[in-house]
Amino acid sequence: MIIIMKMGAGEERIQEVVAQVEELGFQAHLSRGEERTIIGVIGDERPVSPHVFELMEGVERTVPILQPFKLASRDFKPEDTIIPINGMRIGSREVTVMAGPCAVESREQMLEAAWAVKEAGVRILRGGAFKPRTSPYSFQGLGKEGLEILGEVKEETGLAIVTEVMAPEDVPLVARYADILQVGARNMQNFSLLHAVGESKMPILLKRGMMATLEELLMAAEYILSHDNYRVMLCERGIRTFEKYTRNTLDINAVPVLKGLTHLPVIVDPSHGTGRWELVGPVARAAVAAGADGLLIEVHPHPQRALSDGAQSLRPERFAQLMKELRRVAEAVGREIKLQTPNSKLQTSIPSMGG
Amino acid sequence: MIIIMKMGAGEERIQEVVAQVEELGFQAHLSRGEERTIIGVIGDERPVSPHVFELMEGVERTVPILQPFKLASRDFKPEDTIIPINGMRIGSREVTVMAGPCAVESREQMLEAAWAVKEAGVRILRGGAFKPRTSPYSFQGLGKEGLEILGEVKEETGLAIVTEVMAPEDVPLVARYADILQVGARNMQNFSLLHAVGESKMPILLKRGMMATLEELLMAAEYILSHDNYRVMLCERGIRTFEKYTRNTLDINAVPVLKGLTHLPVIVDPSHGTGRWELVGPVARAAVAAGADGLLIEVHPHPQRALSDGAQSLRPERFAQLMKELRRVAEAVGREIKLQTPNSKLQTSIPSMGG
Amino acid sequence: MIIIMKMGAGEERIQEVVAQVEELGFQAHLSRGEERTIIGVIGDERPVSPHVFELMEGVERTVPILQPFKLASRDFKPEDTIIPINGMRIGSREVTVMAGPCAVESREQMLEAAWAVKEAGVRILRGGAFKPRTSPYSFQGLGKEGLEILGEVKEETGLAIVTEVMAPEDVPLVARYADILQVGARNMQNFSLLHAVGESKMPILLKRGMMATLEELLMAAEYILSHDNYRVMLCERGIRTFEKYTRNTLDINAVPVLKGLTHLPVIVDPSHGTGRWELVGPVARAAVAAGADGLLIEVHPHPQRALSDGAQSLRPERFAQLMKELRRVAEAVGREIKLQTPNSKLQTSIPSMGG
Amino acid sequence: MIIIMKMGAGEERIQEVVAQVEELGFQAHLSRGEERTIIGVIGDERPVSPHVFELMEGVERTVPILQPFKLASRDFKPEDTIIPINGMRIGSREVTVMAGPCAVESREQMLEAAWAVKEAGVRILRGGAFKPRTSPYSFQGLGKEGLEILGEVKEETGLAIVTEVMAPEDVPLVARYADILQVGARNMQNFSLLHAVGESKMPILLKRGMMATLEELLMAAEYILSHDNYRVMLCERGIRTFEKYTRNTLDINAVPVLKGLTHLPVIVDPSHGTGRWELVGPVARAAVAAGADGLLIEVHPHPQRALSDGAQSLRPERFAQLMKELRRVAEAVGREIKLQTPNSKLQTSIPSMGG
Repeated sequence: MIIIMKMGAGEERIQEVVAQVEELGFQAHLSRGEERTIIGVIGDERPVSPHVFELMEGVERTVPILQPFKLASRDFKPEDTIIPINGMRIGSREVTVMAGPCAVESREQMLEAAWAVKEAGVRILRGGAFKPRTSPYSFQGLGKEGLEILGEVKEETGLAIVTEVMAPEDVPLVARYADILQVGARNMQNFSLLHAVGESKMPILLKRGMMATLEELLMAAEYILSHDNYRVMLCERGIRTFEKYTRNTLDINAVPVLKGLTHLPVIVDPSHGTGRWELVGPVARAAVAAGADGLLIEVHPHPQRALSDGAQSLRPERFAQLMKELRRVAEAVGREIKLQTPNSKLQTSIPSMGG
Repeated sequence: MIIIMKMGAGEERIQEVVAQVEELGFQAHLSRGEERTIIGVIGDERPVSPHVFELMEGVERTVPILQPFKLASRDFKPEDTIIPINGMRIGSREVTVMAGPCAVESREQMLEAAWAVKEAGVRILRGGAFKPRTSPYSFQGLGKEGLEILGEVKEETGLAIVTEVMAPEDVPLVARYADILQVGARNMQNFSLLHAVGESKMPILLKRGMMATLEELLMAAEYILSHDNYRVMLCERGIRTFEKYTRNTLDINAVPVLKGLTHLPVIVDPSHGTGRWELVGPVARAAVAAGADGLLIEVHPHPQRALSDGAQSLRPERFAQLMKELRRVAEAVGREIKLQTPNSKLQTSIPSMGG
Repeated sequence: MIIIMKMGAGEERIQEVVAQVEELGFQAHLSRGEERTIIGVIGDERPVSPHVFELMEGVERTVPILQPFKLASRDFKPEDTIIPINGMRIGSREVTVMAGPCAVESREQMLEAAWAVKEAGVRILRGGAFKPRTSPYSFQGLGKEGLEILGEVKEETGLAIVTEVMAPEDVPLVARYADILQVGARNMQNFSLLHAVGESKMPILLKRGMMATLEELLMAAEYILSHDNYRVMLCERGIRTFEKYTRNTLDINAVPVLKGLTHLPVIVDPSHGTGRWELVGPVARAAVAAGADGLLIEVHPHPQRALSDGAQSLRPERFAQLMKELRRVAEAVGREIKLQTPNSKLQTSIPSMGG
Repeated sequence: MIIIMKMGAGEERIQEVVAQVEELGFQAHLSRGEERTIIGVIGDERPVSPHVFELMEGVERTVPILQPFKLASRDFKPEDTIIPINGMRIGSREVTVMAGPCAVESREQMLEAAWAVKEAGVRILRGGAFKPRTSPYSFQGLGKEGLEILGEVKEETGLAIVTEVMAPEDVPLVARYADILQVGARNMQNFSLLHAVGESKMPILLKRGMMATLEELLMAAEYILSHDNYRVMLCERGIRTFEKYTRNTLDINAVPVLKGLTHLPVIVDPSHGTGRWELVGPVARAAVAAGADGLLIEVHPHPQRALSDGAQSLRPERFAQLMKELRRVAEAVGREIKLQTPNSKLQTSIPSMGG
């Protein structure tokens, strides 16, 4: 941390700050500039609140030097974390596409969707049993029944399952059916939930809050990693801005920024990131071109009848077409989307830190 | 709901939409304009997803007509809801100030803070036992021990307690010690928690998410009200914008907007809304002048030693001075902040819907 | 400026940076921390681009130490700048209300508005002859004819005039009729215009851009001040956020922040800051309570017939009522809004730097 | 336009609104819903201010039906506008890359940059002679001298020139040297300038304001088009959000949205859109994958010595490498970036509306 003194702060004020720095067990290092004196705090500053200094007389402000996240940083773990799921290696040269309906509505709907996305080359099926909805009057998901449907569909199709968990007490239940636990955007800073999914040791898809900075996203991941659960995927799904034409503004910059800051895989959700099915294709292609490790795409056999997010869901035939386009873009940037669909039933993934 | 057809959408497309409207049990009402045809949907549209129509051929977009919230609206309940707590009547002509430290740190700290704010005229003490923190490396609150301290302080000083609950399973525990349950900004759309606090029948202080529109705040309240728990206070605590000088941007417009849309009391938190103690006074005065029904202010006996939010906490003597200023502003706008401190121990508030 | 080296940056990298610092004529000052080395640059850093260092190998980032604005800062000029206009002293203990229609529409409309606001105690009339409009199909203002109307109204009523200038070449023309030149929000960073109004030596009302930080507002003021024109008022008029219920989000925090950072008077425009007439009163009261030096309020004799901004304009009788309320709030915070209307014709203001 | 009446608005209120609609020369069309009556206004609503109705008693709000832009819309002109410049056809199947330094600093710098980008396949050189800078203490551009340098470089290399014009009175001067006039983000709503560049009949590169919605961008284009100047390119260059890690947030959604709404070519500026050279490559690839018609990229022979925007400028060798990557991505999405560099001197482009 660096402490910047006010213009004209006298020697006494400076010595008080130095004394406080030393009292906290750090070393102080002074630079006397033309207008201001600055005091460097030498040591691991993370546990110290900057207001300890900011409230002292003569102090103008403080500047943190260290990144607040540690386990999530490339400084801590330079090589990419690779998460094996159902024969895919998320975070490797392969680009992983996860697809399926927003919500589990019925066995028939899920099976139809599952076979369709599998046919297009997908090995991980999405589908929500617990649905966070802005309005109490909207469809809230099938809950446990939805999980059971997911279990049956997984059994039948061999697809792995990614599904959202909304409350700490539901983690064990959801973990019984899912291969990846999704923490939704609205819960990115639900710290009780972050602890619970960390404890679960399951692979986690952590969605960026719609008004969370990238630093906050990495701090949320840090909560999970601190339980020694390193199988965390970060998901950019659009942020909230003043622009009203799209539901959210997909932050494409986030992809290369995160790839630089962290070793964790970066997934993009172009469905929520745009909110309109006709924009999903172009933005999905952009995400792959920008270096995303995977995509999360809403596909519904009958979007018009969907109980949620129909407006942003692709029909299966459009999705199959998109998969072909994505393969070409992936190749153009030196990546790969595997063609063959898995013949075997679900392959159990072996937990391992990174790869 | 109104459905706006694309320019040049043919008669066949229009009839398909009309048929769909009628199939869903509504009446359709056509207006043929010069460039576009619009179709009115007559009936309670709230349970219908607009994408049912938006995905039909020839449809450009839909426009909702009804406000999505119902129980929270003035249309539903025109008169102000008044919530009696410890001799105060929140939502009445009185302006209610709640104050205290960000976090419960120790029995001594809480008692010192409690007597100081009581001395200044406050009857409701704030203090967090469960603390949502961006970083897993920051102080996370004392938990159950913190609640017990709050219980003792309440017993000793006669102050009522407002404190945050972060997880549904903690609601019964927190309710044992608190007079008002606070739902924090990061949990405004933690729907499991909203259901749980609704069920508790306790008075609720619902903080606006830093990313939440006023409509979303009212929808979150609607979750609680739908459990027939009408004792909900809405709290504006600053939203996230591009401005970097302050921690958040306090949305002062929210005060008169909410007072117009809803019957629920509106509280303002100038401490989080600014993030800097030297701004708390001016913004607190502004909130009262704008018509807020109450304030939530961080006061700490020794801000420099505070384990969280020290930079935005007032010292007791500054707070006492601010209370005097607030009284003058309240009077200038035809409101009142009661002078005398309560002699008696905590008065039990009788649950009642509104006033 | 402080230069933060990457973790593990070697001695060679550090010495290269030191050499570059010294080559630019500064002194370098090293602090070797546990994880990173930081290098202080001693001297006036303002003219140096940080990328000179940021692009060097081994450098992580740089942190500016000095505020980028100088003439506008309280460090440079601690006492409040007071701008005398038509018998008012803007920036003093008095709170100055400027009011009138958004646009000059006709001689009759302006006269009616002028007498109404004068009656309510106002001495400075607003009214736009040049109107920046989002759409080329909207009313664009009467231009020169509008200025002539303003001139006549000023002559007849003795009110001073504040009106917008949109292009550098119009500055001399507008200056002939106006007492205060307004630079609109959309032109806050129209640097050619800032130079021109600086050169004019006229009092300037500089509106904050709807997505400008406070630092950028102060830098825009700095352009004007650098022409030795110190009669600059800063105007908070709402910023653009995600909230859709109001036209803009009035940043009430800006008032005490600016009063702390700069000696220039701070004006608030609750009409644009809310966009709805029914919110203007509460927010105007809030602005005075927060410490604003003045208000800019849209008043129209017949809002429904207004050619622009009708929805946010007050009728004269509501405005007169508001003036009474504002007086009470001003007194409650130790300020004053003068009661008596001026009998005399326009008093010429004598240019002077600050007070 | 649709007028939504308040719940419970009586027949008298409804008839007053109908009378007002008809007085303005429109037809009124009533739908009586369960909770509210809505009134359709039939006719071209664009010139009518909604507040005419919004201020009437009993009216809750109004909803516009028509898009506010006309000439820029696909409804008006369905086929893509193609703008021929120096042998390129901007807006066609080709993707056009424009590149060069942020600012003209010297003849040597510009020539070095020009030959480098030409070598990489570029035919349009960027470089600013007039520079809008946040601080009056930063380099403000060489002005007329800079234009003369651009003229010489154009003569020598055969590259076409895109350069910014900041003030209406400079348009004729800049037009003498430039092939494309750039309107910068800060001037997107400088309406005097929009009129002047419209009048010039030159090709225009119109940058989206950092605070502007896509609708406002299209309205700004409408100003230019209304002068019968159809050679307008829209440029997404990042918007301002709460995210602090990048200078701006590039709105990748804008590319497919604009391609859907308008016939004008869409250019992306990944240099300003990210603010960091290491992010330019991934985001440039994303823009092409999303369907952009062109890119505007900052390239500087010696970024470290650049007088502005050095941190986001690519070195020539990195840029040459990026051009190869972009070609592969363009092909993957069915587009093309031409390989051969032009042997001939500048080919004069023939003004024509669209293609």
